[in-house]
Amino acid sequence: MKPILEVAALAGIEEEELELYGRYKAKLSPSLWERVRTRQDGKLVLVTAMNPTPAGEGKTLTTIGLAQALNAAGHRTVAALREPSLGPCFGMKGGATGSGKAQIVPAEDINLHFTGDLHAITSAHNLLAAMIDNHIHQGNVLRLNPQRIVWKRAMDMNDRSLRSIVTGLGDGNGAVREGGFLITTASEVMAILCLSTGLGDLKERLGRIITGYNQDGEAVTAAQLDAVEAMTILLKDAIKPNLVQTLEGTPVIVHGGPFANIAHGCSSVLGTRLALKLGEIVVTEAGFGADLGAEKFLDIKCRQAGLSPAAAVLVVTVKALKYNGGMAKDRLRETGMKALEDGLSNMKRHVENLKKFGVPAVVAINHFADDLPEEVERVLAECRAMNVPAAVSNVWAEGSAGGLELAKALTDLLEKESSNYRPLYALDTDIRTKIETIVREIYRGAEVSYSPAALRSLKDIEQLGYGNVPVCMAKTQYSFSDQPKLLGAPEGFKVQVREISLSAGAGFVVVHTGNIMTMPGLPKSPAAVHMSIDDDGRISGLF
Amino acid sequence: MKPILEVAALAGIEEEELELYGRYKAKLSPSLWERVRTRQDGKLVLVTAMNPTPAGEGKTLTTIGLAQALNAAGHRTVAALREPSLGPCFGMKGGATGSGKAQIVPAEDINLHFTGDLHAITSAHNLLAAMIDNHIHQGNVLRLNPQRIVWKRAMDMNDRSLRSIVTGLGDGNGAVREGGFLITTASEVMAILCLSTGLGDLKERLGRIITGYNQDGEAVTAAQLDAVEAMTILLKDAIKPNLVQTLEGTPVIVHGGPFANIAHGCSSVLGTRLALKLGEIVVTEAGFGADLGAEKFLDIKCRQAGLSPAAAVLVVTVKALKYNGGMAKDRLRETGMKALEDGLSNMKRHVENLKKFGVPAVVAINHFADDLPEEVERVLAECRAMNVPAAVSNVWAEGSAGGLELAKALTDLLEKESSNYRPLYALDTDIRTKIETIVREIYRGAEVSYSPAALRSLKDIEQLGYGNVPVCMAKTQYSFSDQPKLLGAPEGFKVQVREISLSAGAGFVVVHTGNIMTMPGLPKSPAAVHMSIDDDGRISGLF
Repeated sequence: MKPILEVAALAGIEEEELELYGRYKAKLSPSLWERVRTRQDGKLVLVTAMNPTPAGEGKTLTTIGLAQALNAAGHRTVAALREPSLGPCFGMKGGATGSGKAQIVPAEDINLHFTGDLHAITSAHNLLAAMIDNHIHQGNVLRLNPQRIVWKRAMDMNDRSLRSIVTGLGDGNGAVREGGFLITTASEVMAILCLSTGLGDLKERLGRIITGYNQDGEAVTAAQLDAVEAMTILLKDAIKPNLVQTLEGTPVIVHGGPFANIAHGCSSVLGTRLALKLGEIVVTEAGFGADLGAEKFLDIKCRQAGLSPAAAVLVVTVKALKYNGGMAKDRLRETGMKALEDGLSNMKRHVENLKKFGVPAVVAINHFADDLPEEVERVLAECRAMNVPAAVSNVWAEGSAGGLELAKALTDLLEKESSNYRPLYALDTDIRTKIETIVREIYRGAEVSYSPAALRSLKDIEQLGYGNVPVCMAKTQYSFSDQPKLLGAPEGFKVQVREISLSAGAGFVVVHTGNIMTMPGLPKSPAAVHMSIDDDGRISGLF
Repeated sequence: MKPILEVAALAGIEEEELELYGRYKAKLSPSLWERVRTRQDGKLVLVTAMNPTPAGEGKTLTTIGLAQALNAAGHRTVAALREPSLGPCFGMKGGATGSGKAQIVPAEDINLHFTGDLHAITSAHNLLAAMIDNHIHQGNVLRLNPQRIVWKRAMDMNDRSLRSIVTGLGDGNGAVREGGFLITTASEVMAILCLSTGLGDLKERLGRIITGYNQDGEAVTAAQLDAVEAMTILLKDAIKPNLVQTLEGTPVIVHGGPFANIAHGCSSVLGTRLALKLGEIVVTEAGFGADLGAEKFLDIKCRQAGLSPAAAVLVVTVKALKYNGGMAKDRLRETGMKALEDGLSNMKRHVENLKKFGVPAVVAINHFADDLPEEVERVLAECRAMNVPAAVSNVWAEGSAGGLELAKALTDLLEKESSNYRPLYALDTDIRTKIETIVREIYRGAEVSYSPAALRSLKDIEQLGYGNVPVCMAKTQYSFSDQPKLLGAPEGFKVQVREISLSAGAGFVVVHTGNIMTMPGLPKSPAAVHMSIDDDGRISGLF
C-alpha cells in the first residue's frame, strides 16, 4: 500500500484537503470540492450486471479491476464504490472490497468500521427514533399516533430477532407500541446521505422524513420534532467522501452504501461528483442486476444529481448464464452448452434495456479458471451478433493486466459512440404510470396488480404532494420478474405490488413487490464463528 | 490547537507510533507500549470528589486544569480521562470535555464519534446478542433457555423505550422473549475493554461473559457461542488509547468510559499504564464521588492492574457543601454559612475515607465567581483543622494560572508524604463480607439487608467459582447511603441489596442497591433540539 497522501497526490489532491484516518484512509475535505468544482467532468461509466446468481458475478471485482486497467493504459481513472456493511460481513457474505488482484485496501478496515460513516448514520437514525418516543412520553404536543409511527430503529447487524418487537414495556418507559429495526443500509438516512449535494441539502432532506402520523392522519416530519440539526451534527463527517486505493494504487472513493431494493443502491452523489472532477474516467457500480441497479442509477441518482453517464459495462459470467439457462447451482462447473445457450437471453435483454436509456454498453465476461474456451467464445459470438462490444476480464487472477482488453473495448466505445442518456420515464406522470413503464419496458411483464393497501398508500402519497418523484422498485434481484425462480428472460408475467411507501427525504416512492427483508438474519454457521485474530492483531477469516 | 504530532512529540511519542484521526486526534500504536514498557512509572494522582450535586462540582474540569498547571509549573504531566457518551450529550448533560479555560480539544469531535471506540463496543456487544438469538433459532445445540438470557443489547443513545422490550415477534424471526437495551457505557464489553491489559487478555475476558443459562441452569459463555474472535476483531482499534490535548497543549489520553454504578467508572488500564510511562505525573479521575469512584478505582482498577496511586485530589465546591448542608438547589447562590458549616461533614468524611486506603489527599476548592471570601476561608480552615492540605482552584477562569496553587499543594504532598496504598478489603473473604466492609468503612451504614433474589444470586455466583472477585457497588451517587436525599454525612442507615449480578469478563460482582438505570431517557426538552449546524459545518449548542 502507498501512503494515502501519495494516492491523493496522484489524483491532484493536496495534503490540507485530506483528513487522515490512519496512514491509508482519508476523508476528503469540502475545500477540495470548492477548489475543483468548476473543472470539466470526466466520463462516468456504470458497471452493472446480469441478474445475480448464487455463484457470484464479480461486479465489484470488475469495477476495481477495470479502474486499475484503465490507469495502467494511461487513462487517469478514479473508482467510486459503496461502503460495506458490518451485518453481512459477520453473516455470510464475506467482505465487499473485491478479491484476488482486484481489491481495495486496507480491506480489513474498510470492511470493519472504516471511517465510521455507518455508525454515524445509525446514531442519527436512532436519535430521531428516541426523540419520537420521547415526544410521545413527554406530553405528545404533536398528537402523534403511537400506532402509526413508521420510523423504525436501525442497527448495522444481521439480527432477525429485532425485525418485529414491542417497545416501551414497564412502568415509566414510554408508550407501549410495535416497532422494529432495519439494518443501517436500509435506513432512509443512508439514502438521504447518498443523494445529498451538501450539508444544506442534507438538512432539508432530513427535515422531510416522515416519522409517523398524528391523530388526524396527517404526516409528522423530523423537522416538526426539531431533530434535524442534531441529526446533521451527527452526520457532519459522514457526509465527506472517503479516499482509499486499489492494490495497484488507483484512487478509489468509497462512500455510502444504501440497500439496492428499498433504496437506490448507489454510492454517494458527493463522491461521484468529486471523482468526476479528479478523473478523466470514473468507474462506479450499482447494486444487484441492471434491472434494479442500473435502472435506479439512471432514473433516480443520475436524474436527481444531474449526472450524464457516458457508458455502461454489463458484467456476465459463464456460470451465471448457465444458471439462468436452467442449470442447478451445484452443477455450474460442468459443461452445459444448452444451458449457456438458453441463459444468453438474460444478457441480451439487459443489453437491450441499457440502450433504452441511450447509454452505450460493453459486455465484460468475468473469467473463472474453469470456464471452457468454447463457452467463452459462444458468449463473445452472441455479443458480436448483437453488435455490442465485449471483452474477457481476468482481473481476479491478473489485476490490471487481466483488464486491459476490457479497458480497450470501453475506451474505444467512449471514443466512437456518444451517450444519449435519458431517463426511462418522465417525473410528471402519475406513480402508476411510472411503475408500469418500468415493468413493461425493463422487466417485460404483462401486468401490474396492486393490493388494496398499496392503492390506499398511492392516494395518500399523491395527496401529500409527492406524486412527481421517481419510483424505487423493491424486487427480488434474481429475476426480471417478482418471482426469484423465474430465470432467463421471462415474459408475460404479472407483477404484484404489495405495498407502496414514501421516502420523502430521499425523494422517491418505494414500490414493494414480494417480501423484501430490511433486516437480514445470521445463517446457521455465521462467518463470525470462522474468524480469528492473534495477540498482535493479525486477522484471518474476515473476507 | 497544536497538531497532534507536536503534542505527541512533547510526550516523547514518535510519529510512527501514532495512528492519526485527522490532524488533532490519534490512536497510540502498540509499538509505543513495547518501546516504553520497561521505563519507571510516573506518579499516579486520582482526582475524585465529594458527593455530586445538581450544581456540578467540576471534577473533569479540575483534572484538566490541574494537568495544565502541573505542566506550567515544570512537571511533565499527562492526563488520563474517560470518553464521553453520545446519549447524555443529546440528552441533558452537554459535553464531557471540561469547560472555560480547562478543556480538552477538539471538544466537538471528542463529544461526538471521536475515534469510534463506543461504536465498536456497541457493535461487539450486539454481535454477541445476535449470535445468542441466532443460536436459539438455528437449533439451540447448547440448550439455552430463552427465558434466562441475561445479555441485553446496547445502544449509545438515551432511549427509555428500549429498556424493556419483547423481541422475535412474527413468523421466522426467532424465539419470542423479553429483552432490553443498555446504554453502551453500561455494557460489560466497555468494562472489559477498560480493564484489559492487551488483546490476549481482552479475548479471555470476552470469553468469560455469561450470556444466559441453559435448561439445566448452567451458565453459557460467549466462548461457548464462538463469538470471541469476531468480537475482538470489532474491538481491535478501540483497544488502542487515544491521544488529544488540553487548550494549553498538555497531552491527554482519553480512553474508555464505563458507567460508574454498574461498572467501575474509570478510564482504561491500557491508557493509564501508557500515561505512567510518558509523564512524571499522571492525573486521572473516577466517576461520581469518592464513595463510589475512588473506592472502585482503588479496590478494582488499581488492584487488578497493579497500579499504586501516589495521591488523591478531592474536589469540593462551596455550592455543593451548602447543598449537602441542606440548602435548596435553587438557592445555592445565596449566602448560607450555616448550611456550609453542616455540609463540611461530607468533605470530612471523604477525606477520612481516602486515608483508609493509605493514599495521601489534598482538597481542591473549585472556585465559582459568586463564592464569598468568607465561605472559601471557612473551607480552608476546616482543612487546616483536619491537617489536610487544600488549595483554591480557578482553572475555569484562568486555565493553568488558576491551578498553580493546587499544583503546588499537590507536588508538596507528593514530596513530603509517600503513599501507603492498600485496598479496603481482601479478595479471599466472601462476597457479603466485602459488601459489608464497604458499607461499614466507607458509607458508614449500620446494616445491609439482602433481597431473597440477591441471596440466591450470591449462592450461584460463589458456586460458579467467582466468590473471590471484587465487588462493584451500584448505588446512588448523591448520598453515602442508598437514599439520594440523605445528604451530608449520614450514619446508622440500612443499605438494601436488591440484586447481585456477575460480570465474569470484567471480573467483578455488581451489587445493585435501589433502582439503577442502565438506559437513561431524554428529558422533556432534550439538548438535541437546541443544537444547530450551519452549511459550513459550524456547530453551536453541542456543549
